[in-house]
Amino acid sequence: MTSRLSSREHYADLLDKYDTWLFDCDGVLWSGDKTIDGAIEVLQLLRHHKKSVLFVTNNATKSRANYKKKFDSLGVEAHVDEIYGSAYASAVYISSVMKLPKDKKVYVIGMGGLEEELREEGISFIGGTDPADNTLASFSLANWTPDPTVGAVLCGLDTAINYTKLSKAFSYILRNEGCAFLVTNEDSTYPTSDGLLPGAGSISAPLRYALGRNPIAIGKPQRTMLDCIKAKHDFDPKRTIMVGDRLNTDIEFGKAGGLATLLVLTGITKESELSGPNASPTVADFVTKSIGDLRALIS
Amino acid sequence: MTSRLSSREHYADLLDKYDTWLFDCDGVLWSGDKTIDGAIEVLQLLRHHKKSVLFVTNNATKSRANYKKKFDSLGVEAHVDEIYGSAYASAVYISSVMKLPKDKKVYVIGMGGLEEELREEGISFIGGTDPADNTLASFSLANWTPDPTVGAVLCGLDTAINYTKLSKAFSYILRNEGCAFLVTNEDSTYPTSDGLLPGAGSISAPLRYALGRNPIAIGKPQRTMLDCIKAKHDFDPKRTIMVGDRLNTDIEFGKAGGLATLLVLTGITKESELSGPNASPTVADFVTKSIGDLRALIS
Repeated sequence: MTSRLSSREHYADLLDKYDTWLFDCDGVLWSGDKTIDGAIEVLQLLRHHKKSVLFVTNNATKSRANYKKKFDSLGVEAHVDEIYGSAYASAVYISSVMKLPKDKKVYVIGMGGLEEELREEGISFIGGTDPADNTLASFSLANWTPDPTVGAVLCGLDTAINYTKLSKAFSYILRNEGCAFLVTNEDSTYPTSDGLLPGAGSISAPLRYALGRNPIAIGKPQRTMLDCIKAKHDFDPKRTIMVGDRLNTDIEFGKAGGLATLLVLTGITKESELSGPNASPTVADFVTKSIGDLRALIS
Repeated sequence: MTSRLSSREHYADLLDKYDTWLFDCDGVLWSGDKTIDGAIEVLQLLRHHKKSVLFVTNNATKSRANYKKKFDSLGVEAHVDEIYGSAYASAVYISSVMKLPKDKKVYVIGMGGLEEELREEGISFIGGTDPADNTLASFSLANWTPDPTVGAVLCGLDTAINYTKLSKAFSYILRNEGCAFLVTNEDSTYPTSDGLLPGAGSISAPLRYALGRNPIAIGKPQRTMLDCIKAKHDFDPKRTIMVGDRLNTDIEFGKAGGLATLLVLTGITKESELSGPNASPTVADFVTKSIGDLRALIS
């Protein structure tokens, strides 16, 4: 059962119970280029109460350093080591979990931020923002020399997605023995201030469909993301809460990690999806309209 | 049970039993730009025996008129009215089955051949090969004026697939009330002479994934394609055979229509997939290595 928060006492109770606050960003702290009303004050309040504040985003188009600039531009206080993105987690997964040999490369479908995180982890890659692969020219296997050292394909949101990238990624997974198929995250849509657009999960859907095979996914709700945070940051799951706007990513992520979960309704999930015949099977521990509601504590 | 054909008597029996021969093309008559050895002679033999020969292809990148040129270039005899493509069938479906009102448009993800068939059926469309939509520039809903008269999205193989097209198609289906979601066919891969590339089904996979919704599919194995042929060409299903290289498109198509089916192994399906624990549940009535095997009848 979800507890619906509405009074100062409810919020004070939450503040008491949880020391570490994990936040999704898009749809929770901001929507596109607009901060959610009250979000800045609430984060200040948490910091004032000596809470650990961490930001956990599936957005893999930006590196942590670049994501920090987004916080800065919106006037939201954040430090690079508080930010965990699926691009960073993907790089950590490749270097530390799957331990891709140093003489192997990653073929990237994704943007500059994903490349930046791979580079920081010392992972060799091709594709991505390479102009040769950012083309609408026709692709032919006959005119292509595949790189036999590609040992993984990593696919994230890429707004320059095209048939050349899809064909190369498909061919590497199909032809290079043992080539891994990884996706930064599986979000079906991507929220912008003007509405939804296809998300990272949709960009990798052609590979999934053509190969008839599911990838290893890194971002929320996968455990990989939490392992990545835990490796850098000690916290007690019992005194940790995950705040998010998506039931099937944020809330499932929190629940899978044994964390408390707080759903806000300023993003993807709408009030109407919480009950009735079409209600999601995933239920958050707490729900409140907006993170800004916690301003009730400021008086 | 599949009958494996191997002798002159087997082929003579087939010739006796069936008056109408439906052929898939890629992987049956040719592979990329090379004809399958013996295919031309076998088609001549069938015509010599007064058989009806029809070509049924899921390829929606070419109009029938253009597909005819492919036959010509390979020296394979064919007439435009013998060719049934999923582009043509899609246009017929939109105008005659769903009866899209004349003041409504189709948003197209697809190539020139698909547009040509829509134009011939008098269907208004946007997108497709329009240079404005064939771009890798970033797409923003804020800078876009959607067309409220779009009443259907039709997606086929499009080697100029990009984020602008996917975003527009996604938004039309999501926002325009009653907007239909159609795909020319669902082939996961597309055979070229140098190997497989992602097919039409893979191009529409992002929409399927982002929308969480399945499209209406037109091409094989769907019944729509057979209805389209029947409307133009009278044949007795009991004396008709479908020849193809894909179990999950060609052979299922034939079986669903009550036709006999002949699987050839010159395309997608390999000998190893016909038995054992990973064998397909779809079983053709007959199997032979290549359509060229029927040359045994020429002596």
